[in-house]
Amino acid sequence: MGLMSEKPIIAITMGDPAGVGPEVCLKAMLDRSVLEACIPVIFGDGPILERCADELGIVRQAPICKASRSSPTPSALPLTERPKEPLILDLEVLKPDHFVPAQVDAHTGMASYQFIQRAIDAALGGMVDAVTTAPINKKALSLAGIPYPGHTEMFAARSASESWCMMQYSEVITCTFVTVHIGYAEVPTHLNTQRILEVIRLSADGLQRIRGRQPRIVVCGLNPHAGENGLFGNQEEENIIEPAILAARAEGYQVEGPIPPDTAFLPQKRQDCDVYVCMYHDQGHIPVKALAFDTAVNTTLGLPIIRTSVDHGTALDIAWKGLARESSLISAIQLAAKLARKDPSGAY
Amino acid sequence: MGLMSEKPIIAITMGDPAGVGPEVCLKAMLDRSVLEACIPVIFGDGPILERCADELGIVRQAPICKASRSSPTPSALPLTERPKEPLILDLEVLKPDHFVPAQVDAHTGMASYQFIQRAIDAALGGMVDAVTTAPINKKALSLAGIPYPGHTEMFAARSASESWCMMQYSEVITCTFVTVHIGYAEVPTHLNTQRILEVIRLSADGLQRIRGRQPRIVVCGLNPHAGENGLFGNQEEENIIEPAILAARAEGYQVEGPIPPDTAFLPQKRQDCDVYVCMYHDQGHIPVKALAFDTAVNTTLGLPIIRTSVDHGTALDIAWKGLARESSLISAIQLAAKLARKDPSGAY
Repeated sequence: MGLMSEKPIIAITMGDPAGVGPEVCLKAMLDRSVLEACIPVIFGDGPILERCADELGIVRQAPICKASRSSPTPSALPLTERPKEPLILDLEVLKPDHFVPAQVDAHTGMASYQFIQRAIDAALGGMVDAVTTAPINKKALSLAGIPYPGHTEMFAARSASESWCMMQYSEVITCTFVTVHIGYAEVPTHLNTQRILEVIRLSADGLQRIRGRQPRIVVCGLNPHAGENGLFGNQEEENIIEPAILAARAEGYQVEGPIPPDTAFLPQKRQDCDVYVCMYHDQGHIPVKALAFDTAVNTTLGLPIIRTSVDHGTALDIAWKGLARESSLISAIQLAAKLARKDPSGAY
Repeated sequence: MGLMSEKPIIAITMGDPAGVGPEVCLKAMLDRSVLEACIPVIFGDGPILERCADELGIVRQAPICKASRSSPTPSALPLTERPKEPLILDLEVLKPDHFVPAQVDAHTGMASYQFIQRAIDAALGGMVDAVTTAPINKKALSLAGIPYPGHTEMFAARSASESWCMMQYSEVITCTFVTVHIGYAEVPTHLNTQRILEVIRLSADGLQRIRGRQPRIVVCGLNPHAGENGLFGNQEEENIIEPAILAARAEGYQVEGPIPPDTAFLPQKRQDCDVYVCMYHDQGHIPVKALAFDTAVNTTLGLPIIRTSVDHGTALDIAWKGLARESSLISAIQLAAKLARKDPSGAY
């Protein structure tokens, strides 16, 4: 990380070229608050971004620079020094006439994966302070043979962390996740006390850094009404979730639960909660998207690399039409910049 | 049902005596909009309501009348004629000194069940036009040996309907449910195409009556991202949900889906949707409680009896303290009155 007086350098991966990623990256780079908070560096394909800027009439704010190819080793960093100004890094992965906008394709899936890998290279090499990711398409990744369903898992694999979790952060509601990208039916078999305790710890540490004080944590139940005293479900609340809460309290964390998942997100309850620990993807994503669509930021807690992401997908229905809004990407960049500049004491 | 020029008669069951039911029933009966919309008749225990009014300083608006005991048969109706004014019907089930406020107890559970049964008697006998229910306590019901987890199932059992579903109705979001009060892990085995089609039909009919036009229906997926083209889950979307949607469209209904459960409830999406068909309890209850806590009304579609219910529980932590708000019960009474007065053509 750079000196505290310098702006943090945020790598912004371009996302799937066929989606809204190129457009929102270019638009975010024009945002004054982004330029005040950090030095943004887009990791993508220069000619694709030029085509996007031309077709949609977006001003291209930063110069295009080719990635470093000076070293003969495959581990060469894409950047050989820390950028001092906003930059578009041309990784030369996919040519602009080798894909069709708004179309799911193995080539764009592979390109989106490559942008992420080079950004991770740069972060691990100390050339950038954090990474913010534009949306990728899971189907395109799968067609390209990429074995990861999402950013969270890609960063976890490269950062060699055994303890991590996804977080959806916003000013009005923040959720962390015990399980994420697995089928509905698989969730119960993936729940265990140790994992829930781990996510409570990660949530506490993450929100401590963001808020500068001990956070109030609410842990959701799994079943309707949190099982209503054992009437519904297989007592996952009593047997799996409650022991994790008791253990976390013994470690000094401020934890409440297991709370019935529907009443957990009542307006009054939200005021008393800094972070919800959710058992499965939609338990937290439904209220986050309903309440904080435009401002929610996806990040991964527990990794050596600070990573934030937009809260929307590739939105192929509006891709390359000039209709995409950059607000979510801007929120993600701003959170990354805050986390990258943070005082180790947890206070701003 | 009475003549169109008369106010509908709404039976209001008092709920669990130990909860907030007695208090909110008394308060709702003081509400001008309730008295303008209907003739409310509380089905409960007169002395308990008197004690509640005295202790909490609530004006008791209506006279207390004992239920009919003139007939020697157990099937005697609690009312022998349709009331012409607001009324508190004393069913003489539980004495006011035979229970402790805010305490879960088999006796209060049994009493809450009896109030509902007598209200169903009155509705089936044509003495009231609809029933609105104050909250019951599932644990108390279970202690009393009542085999039903909630109002929905009780009304379904008494009304001999083979085709019904729960609906959570509000002006901002309305959800219907393919499954309701079962454990998280049981949901996938309860999903089948015929049941989903049934809930789509019931939703279409219910919203047609409320809105007076063909509703726009959104069907949610089961898995994260609605399975994202088969990447997560067991293809429940493709194998079970989509065939129901296709069949419903063939019947002329306006149906979209399966939609990823988290993006389904985005603000813009909500504007284009009259009713969400949800696969499980929390999929719909989480957004309803987050977005429409104070105004959401629980009802059951497909039954011979019109039935609406408050959207909160017995709230034992604030029971008998004068702190309970009657707004949800009032919303429920008003929806019941609308449904009871409806023109058969579906327009108001």
